[in-house]
Amino acid sequence: MKKIINNPENVVDEMLQGIVKAHPEHLKRLEGFDVLVRKNSPVKDKVALVSGGGSGHEPSHGGFVGEGMLDAAVAGEVFTSPTPDQVFEAIKAVDSGEGVLLIIKNYSGDVMNFEMAKDMAEMEGIKVETVVVNDDVAVEDSTYTTGRRGIAGTVLVHKIAGAAAEKGMDLENVKRVAEKVITNTRSMGMSLTPCTVPQAGKPSFELEEDEMEVGLGIHGEPGIYKRKIMNADEITELLLEKILEDIEVKEDEEVAVLVNGLGGTPIMELYIVNRDLHEILEEKNIKIYKTLVGNFMTSLEMAGFSLTVLKLDDELKELLDFKANTPALKMI
Amino acid sequence: MKKIINNPENVVDEMLQGIVKAHPEHLKRLEGFDVLVRKNSPVKDKVALVSGGGSGHEPSHGGFVGEGMLDAAVAGEVFTSPTPDQVFEAIKAVDSGEGVLLIIKNYSGDVMNFEMAKDMAEMEGIKVETVVVNDDVAVEDSTYTTGRRGIAGTVLVHKIAGAAAEKGMDLENVKRVAEKVITNTRSMGMSLTPCTVPQAGKPSFELEEDEMEVGLGIHGEPGIYKRKIMNADEITELLLEKILEDIEVKEDEEVAVLVNGLGGTPIMELYIVNRDLHEILEEKNIKIYKTLVGNFMTSLEMAGFSLTVLKLDDELKELLDFKANTPALKMI
Repeated sequence: MKKIINNPENVVDEMLQGIVKAHPEHLKRLEGFDVLVRKNSPVKDKVALVSGGGSGHEPSHGGFVGEGMLDAAVAGEVFTSPTPDQVFEAIKAVDSGEGVLLIIKNYSGDVMNFEMAKDMAEMEGIKVETVVVNDDVAVEDSTYTTGRRGIAGTVLVHKIAGAAAEKGMDLENVKRVAEKVITNTRSMGMSLTPCTVPQAGKPSFELEEDEMEVGLGIHGEPGIYKRKIMNADEITELLLEKILEDIEVKEDEEVAVLVNGLGGTPIMELYIVNRDLHEILEEKNIKIYKTLVGNFMTSLEMAGFSLTVLKLDDELKELLDFKANTPALKMI
Repeated sequence: MKKIINNPENVVDEMLQGIVKAHPEHLKRLEGFDVLVRKNSPVKDKVALVSGGGSGHEPSHGGFVGEGMLDAAVAGEVFTSPTPDQVFEAIKAVDSGEGVLLIIKNYSGDVMNFEMAKDMAEMEGIKVETVVVNDDVAVEDSTYTTGRRGIAGTVLVHKIAGAAAEKGMDLENVKRVAEKVITNTRSMGMSLTPCTVPQAGKPSFELEEDEMEVGLGIHGEPGIYKRKIMNADEITELLLEKILEDIEVKEDEEVAVLVNGLGGTPIMELYIVNRDLHEILEEKNIKIYKTLVGNFMTSLEMAGFSLTVLKLDDELKELLDFKANTPALKMI
């Protein structure tokens, strides 16, 4: 295992320290917890957004804490759900009295622990709602999940629900918007290499020198199949086809797309994929309103990418464009 | 070679297409050239900034084209200097009459070709000045360079000189500011893995499973030595020590730091390094005014990072904080 770390047991704690030291203008750490919250929490008169999950997906989710996106991000151990008490502390720290929306990626452990935290918070009189992101069309009922998994599309939920909250929508409406994004979002990924959890010390799966894995999850959960490596445009077409089988996008409808690197993919390759993606969508007369390219929801050092397509309407477009000022995503 | 590309011969062209499709609000391509320019070029009454170099360092330099940073970025083939005619076209496209500053990384080919382009532009009556960035303290007179090489510190030159131009400074002063940044900036890098140029098809060097390379260049040029892999804090201390041997930073002086990923390094690891870096500088009573962490000057899929330290004064602080709105760096 080649990693630039100190003690494998301390990677999450040291990473959180490093994030706070880099971005004090956006966020701070809840003393004694693996929770990052907006610097000025709780933000007065605003519905608060809390997300999180296992670490190893940076900049998700701490990199999206800030104006126009999340109020708190809870970090579990690498690829491990955060415990309910950590989520509970996050909720208490950010609630302004307007209530809290928990944005959960669909993994059984995350759902269970965030729901338990919701119960704990409600017993203290805090209004809490939850949404579960399940954008990955690759497989149903995988290793850690019932139903579809939640992957990079989660960042679009953060962005759009975060804008809704920042604009002053109430909890019911912020939840409604988040659910609209979830209903309209689909993703699928592929990888060229596995990744290694620091405490495990070796990769979770193996790929031959000429192989790729289609449809794997962000923790290296099995995908649909392994096959011989393809060209960028063939891969892009393959992933997009699966996405568009699952969600109908008609001619002249508008979408946002996210080309998400898994951590070890050169930015050059992400842009080549973006070129291929635009060409295919243009041929189908699907209009691309907004494009995001970069490392948003990673799997440590895994080489590969995921595509996300979000069907837009006027409300979503306005919220997508709304100002955000966070470490990992800024919209001016 | 595992890469998400189409034809290895076309990676630069297809990448540039992908960048333009992703960021039409910031930039466009000069028809027929491998040059990205600000959408509204030339920007009236403003000194224009042109940079560039070999491809493979994305988001450098195309990702920094936009408000408050570059007016044009010229892309050579992977790890290969752009030709003088391409640079010349960039100069002509962005000059508003106020003159053009070329920001060149110190590699013999880049310096020669940008200087030739300057001569060509001057023959057409365009005022052109150049600065050469040489922030890498690792080695003098390496494979492709006389003197120190230019690496990630270049991005800070783009940021600060870009702000100076945007604020209306004349060519002489934009150049003065750029040279001040260069004088005050030092960097050094290390890697865990090599990288593979698409057209070459195999890595430029090799490292054993327990080895790292200290001080290598961003094209995989040899560094100072190979050695057994160290902990993050030991590596950070090693690089920082070399940097501070080369540039004196006194107690209570202020610096900006850049923890730059080389393309294949998990963001988690960059933040762990940032934590170690801050601890060491705090012990020395050196004040960190601004921290940047991310992939700014990459070497394709290389795993590793570089540290950059920039000594600040009041003028540089104000320009560093000035608004920037580019694909890869935004300051709100």
